[in-house]
Parts: sequence; structure tokens; C-alpha cells
Amino acid sequence: MLSVTEAIKALRACSKRLVEPETIDLIDATGRTLADDVIAHIDVPPADNSAMDGYAIRHADGSKAGQGIPICQRITAGSVPVELEPGTAARIFTGAELPPGADTVVMQEHCKEADRAVRILDLPETGANIRRRGQDLSSGQKVLARGQRLRSQDIGLAASLGLARIPVFRRLKVAVMSTGDELREPGERLLPGQIYNSNRYTMKSQLSTWGFEVVDMGVARDDPDAVRAMMTRAAGMADIVITSGGVSVGEEDHVKAVVESLGTLDLWRIAVKPGKPFAFGQVCGKPFIGLPGNPVSVFVTLLVIARPYLFACQGNTDTLVHALPHTALFERKGSQREEYLRVRATDSGVELFPNQSSGVLFSTTWGHGLVRQERGEDIRQGGVVHYLPYAVFS
Amino acid sequence: MLSVTEAIKALRACSKRLVEPETIDLIDATGRTLADDVIAHIDVPPADNSAMDGYAIRHADGSKAGQGIPICQRITAGSVPVELEPGTAARIFTGAELPPGADTVVMQEHCKEADRAVRILDLPETGANIRRRGQDLSSGQKVLARGQRLRSQDIGLAASLGLARIPVFRRLKVAVMSTGDELREPGERLLPGQIYNSNRYTMKSQLSTWGFEVVDMGVARDDPDAVRAMMTRAAGMADIVITSGGVSVGEEDHVKAVVESLGTLDLWRIAVKPGKPFAFGQVCGKPFIGLPGNPVSVFVTLLVIARPYLFACQGNTDTLVHALPHTALFERKGSQREEYLRVRATDSGVELFPNQSSGVLFSTTWGHGLVRQERGEDIRQGGVVHYLPYAVFS
Repeated sequence: MLSVTEAIKALRACSKRLVEPETIDLIDATGRTLADDVIAHIDVPPADNSAMDGYAIRHADGSKAGQGIPICQRITAGSVPVELEPGTAARIFTGAELPPGADTVVMQEHCKEADRAVRILDLPETGANIRRRGQDLSSGQKVLARGQRLRSQDIGLAASLGLARIPVFRRLKVAVMSTGDELREPGERLLPGQIYNSNRYTMKSQLSTWGFEVVDMGVARDDPDAVRAMMTRAAGMADIVITSGGVSVGEEDHVKAVVESLGTLDLWRIAVKPGKPFAFGQVCGKPFIGLPGNPVSVFVTLLVIARPYLFACQGNTDTLVHALPHTALFERKGSQREEYLRVRATDSGVELFPNQSSGVLFSTTWGHGLVRQERGEDIRQGGVVHYLPYAVFS
Repeated sequence: MLSVTEAIKALRACSKRLVEPETIDLIDATGRTLADDVIAHIDVPPADNSAMDGYAIRHADGSKAGQGIPICQRITAGSVPVELEPGTAARIFTGAELPPGADTVVMQEHCKEADRAVRILDLPETGANIRRRGQDLSSGQKVLARGQRLRSQDIGLAASLGLARIPVFRRLKVAVMSTGDELREPGERLLPGQIYNSNRYTMKSQLSTWGFEVVDMGVARDDPDAVRAMMTRAAGMADIVITSGGVSVGEEDHVKAVVESLGTLDLWRIAVKPGKPFAFGQVCGKPFIGLPGNPVSVFVTLLVIARPYLFACQGNTDTLVHALPHTALFERKGSQREEYLRVRATDSGVELFPNQSSGVLFSTTWGHGLVRQERGEDIRQGGVVHYLPYAVFS
């Protein structure tokens, strides 16, 4: 049996970027993956500017105590200053460019203005209240890295460099299909023997949240020809095909045989709970991931095992999530498999959902994240556990 | 001076939901706020079903060791079983409904089938391998709560109940405007005295990420009439107006006077760094939030102070984020203000970005989150700090 870490690493080794670059408007790039390093081509800020509303002076002039310094210019943000002659001051506002020659800004609360001259009541050190040119970014500096996903602050940073458009990788197209004659769609009437299809919704919602383009294939009948037809279509339309259910070896599970007939399939024995069985292969030359049929297993394997692989195919370089230490408010014996426990976080630690059966999807909606319980790890009340808030998988 | 907690609480006290409910397709509801409790109207699963591929029997029959039990029906997932007569077995597959009368499923690996009869090699306990009706959700149970934001697993859970449409609150419309004659848009040429407008991008990106509908007003000239015209238009188009910059008391800061002329404005002195000044009020009957002009301050106050208020206006009930304990890999003296330090997380703890100046937007893109350093809290190397991964603000 593979450990989860080994499985993620093995998938990683099979992964390659499946999407080409495109250049889009910066404002539409949130959540997208950067296709090139961003190197600053200007200094930010581009010139020394005032951090305060006040008076720009030469420090030497400010020490002539009690004497008024004539105000020779007024520099608002956006206006262009002229050289500050010795013995003069400039009225200056926050964000306005410092005039050449000035080396200090005195905040207005420490000055007194009268008759177009300013008296300095409290002289700060030379260089005070100035935001230096290049203080944030200096020309030539690498500021964002190819392969990273763009967050709001990254978008803001790129804007501060004046970039209106930015190179990103095209969204990964992920085809989602389910199999199972028992599955009915929400809104339909449930007949005896049937259940509603939740996996399709969980998968579509999660894959969209990750910024992938979901190609929704719907549900294939439990029939080899129907599964083969849908699988072929899916591989033609998407970069990757994901199914839930149907990958075990039972005589009613056709996915395995169909994938093998169209490509290759490995059933992975991963020591994870919930999570078995997990399949990986190729259909018609496209990567194939077969998630389990069980709703909790679908959710957990999608987050923990499929996610790093999918993001690698999207061109991301940093695809791993890091657990955070938190305090266990429960105890639990370890087992032979790595377990992903559904928990709720409080200020004092994490509480366990009482029913960790993989049949209980409610366990995933009740709380805020997962605790990774490693193989053979006995969790004791008050001990430190590996906590993975759902948010870190976003 | 208000503490951050007091400021959040005070804003919370002023908040009310500003959006009405609407009913939308479940698949489009990810990230939306639920407008009604979801109460299960069916059991999930709706009937006992098999957790395995195997044979459904009456347990008493299975103990007749060595004897073959005739197989009288074959139940695939989605088909309707008939009553299991005593002394007979049913071939059954994962997810298939249990036939009335059966009380145990024996997995196929523990059976031998020959001549349309099955021999039980290893009899499990009564009730084994059965997923019970209502094991996940039982009819009448409250499963999702009004005011919560829907995540992928919540969408899946609602689907498992058969809900095709779901009541959510309309997206909050947030008008974003900036002021400042020094601001140029990305893509334009930068003239002396000018800088690129990053706040507009950070704000739009972050507000969209939160699922709000952004009404982008652009940039107003530093002129009271221009600011008043834009502000009035913004209040007419959106539920809330947010500006960055221009809320201090300087003679070039017109936002304060304009908001006061159109409504009310309070300048809040919040003991936070980065973050001053923060303004809150009303324009033309709509709530108004005035963020600082500084890019790092905009980012931090948006996440820490504005976010809970905005989500409350969106109808969310749980708007606070919880810090997680993590190990400091740095030391730092506390100050009179609560500080939000930009940090990078590693497996061993959090590292501090060397330049915590609020002029350095790069500090927010360099790392993974914030450390909340409380007033007067001295952080020592190896000590436990309050860590807020950016992801928890999502």
C-alpha cells in the first residue's frame, strides 16, 4: 500500500502542465496561474514622495529655530515639483513627489504657517516622513513567480507596476462524469432503489472553486458501451477526465474495463481513510482519475490526493498544502491507514465529528476542516494534531 | 483609540443585511449565502443499502455452515429488490438497496458461488456491510443554516437531498472608488508625480473573490465636485460604497467633507498597524467605508476590519475568522497598536518579512498570511503566535 505522501509524489511524477499560456486583462486574473515571472521594470514608488501632509524642507534650514521659512511651492499628489531652493519650504501633501533638494518632511501638526512662511515647532530627523523611491519594488526585482496563483494582493502588486495585461496559463479543462443506474438528479423524483447524485455537485463545485473549467458530462448508465461513449467524448473535450464511482473490480463496475480498453488504468492501493479505491490512468491519451463512489471519499481524495496533481497540470509550482498545529479536544487511536478526520475548530482546539463513517457526508459540512491522523498516531486529548482548515485547500 | 476587536464589534452593531433572498440553481450557489435553513425532507440514504459487492442474506441462514444458499435475485444499484425469502440469498452490489428480510451482507471475497448458490466462507456479524437508511441525514434534521456560505461539500449535501434550487441572498453590490490626481491606470504612461493605482485592483479582486458584485466607479479627481458626483452615483448603484484614500483631514482630502455633506462620517481612531485612518459613515442613505490610501493598509483593513462588516451586510451569520496557533521564527517587541505582520509559513513556523513598513505592498505578496501581534505582546523566537493564513479570509 502507498502512503498518501507516496501517492501524491507518484502522481506528481506523472504530472505535466497541460495548458498553454495566454495573455489576459489583469483585473480578470484573480485565481489564475502566472505563466511568466513578473520582473519590475520600474521602481515603486517611482520617486521619493511624502508620507504625510506637511512641509518639505532642507533639514539644515529647519534647525534655524523660531525663524519662518518662506513657502515657495505647493505640491499636491500628482503635481510636478520644482527644485527646492535653499532657505525655502514647500507645502506638500501625502503621496506628492518630493521636490529635488528637499531631504525632510515635517508633518503639519509640528508646524505653524503664517504669512506664506512656515515655522518648524518640532524638527524630525533628516529623511523623516519620506517614502523612498523603490522602497516597495526596485526595477529588475522579481516580484511574482511563474507558476503561482494570483491572489488579490498579487493583482494589486502587478497593478502598481502598471501592468494592464498579464500572461497566465489557460484554465485547465476537467471533464466530470459519474456512473451508476441508481443516481437521480436533484429536482427529479426519487424511485425505489435510487439516490440523488451528490458527487457530481461536490466535484463540479470544488473544481470551479479552484478555477478550472468544468466540462460536465453527466451520468453514464451502468453499461460498458454507454461508459465507453461518454469517456471517449470526455477525453476529446477536456484536458483531464475525472469520474466518481465504478472503479472497483465488481462485475457492475464498467469504468475500469472501459478505461483499460481506451488506455491504461492502475488501481492504487492507498493507505488512506476515507478514500479507497483510487484509480489513475489514461483514456485516449488524456490523464484519467477515478475517484471512489462514496461521497466523503470523493471529497477527501479530491482535496488531498487529486488537488496537487490537478494544480500541477494547471502549471502551478507550489501545489502542496501545509497542515497547521492545533490542539486536539478528543482522543482517538491510530490505525494502519492515514485518516482524514472531519473536525470543527474552536479557539481552544479542534473537536471531532462523532460519526467518522465515510457514508456520512454531513461530517464534512458540519465543521471547518480535516485533521490528518498519521498511520499509528494515537491522538490524545490536549495533544497537538495536524489541522488542515478547508480554506487551505482553496 | 478603539481596539480592532472593539472596531469590528462596533461595525457589527451598525450592520444589517442589505440584500434580499432569491432562489437560484444549486450548481450556481457555491460561495453564496444561504437565505433559509435547509431541513432534510427525506432520509439519506433513503433505504438500507449494501456497502459492498457481495451477498445479502438473513444472518440465521449464513450460520448453516458449508451449505450452499440458493441465489434468488440479483440486485444492482438502482434496481428494486423483492422480499428475501428465508433460506435464500441475493447477489447484491455496492449501493444497491437491501431486499426486505435481509439483515446482513457478506462481501464477495468471503463467499463461493457455484450452481446458482452461494457458500458463506466467513460469516460477519448481523448487520454487517449495510449502510443504514438515514445514516447520513434523517428527515427533519437541520443540515445547513441560514446565513452560512456554501462550500463545495455543502452543495454536495444539498444535492444529496435532491434540491435543484436553493434560496440564497442576492450578491451584495459594493461600489469601489479611488481618489487622487496622482493615480494612473495600469497600461497608461506614468508622468512625473504620478503612481499607478493599485488599490482599485486589490479591492476589486478581493471583493470579487468574496463573491460580491463590484461596481467599479473608477477614480475621482481631487476636486470636491468630482468626488461628490461620483459618490452620489455610487450610492445610487450599490448597497455599500468603499473608497481608498482621501479620508484624512488634509486640505487635499475631499472625501471627508463630501461624505459629511451627503450623510455622516466618523473618523475612527483604531489602534491598528498598518491601518490608519479608517472612516465609517453614510452617503445618501448607503453605508460608507473609507479605507486608508496606503496599499498595505488598504489590504489589511479590508481583510481584518471591513470583511466582517461586509459579510454581515451580505446576510452571513458567522463572519469572524479564527487565528491559529503557530510557532514564531522571529522576535519582535510589542507596541501600543495591534499589528498585522506579514509572514511566510514553513513547516517549522512562521517567518517575518524583513520590512514591515506599510509602504511595502510586496510584504503581502511575499508570504502566506498575517500574524496578529496584540498590543504590548512581545513575540519571542519559538513562542506561539496568532497566525491568520490569507486563506482563512477567503
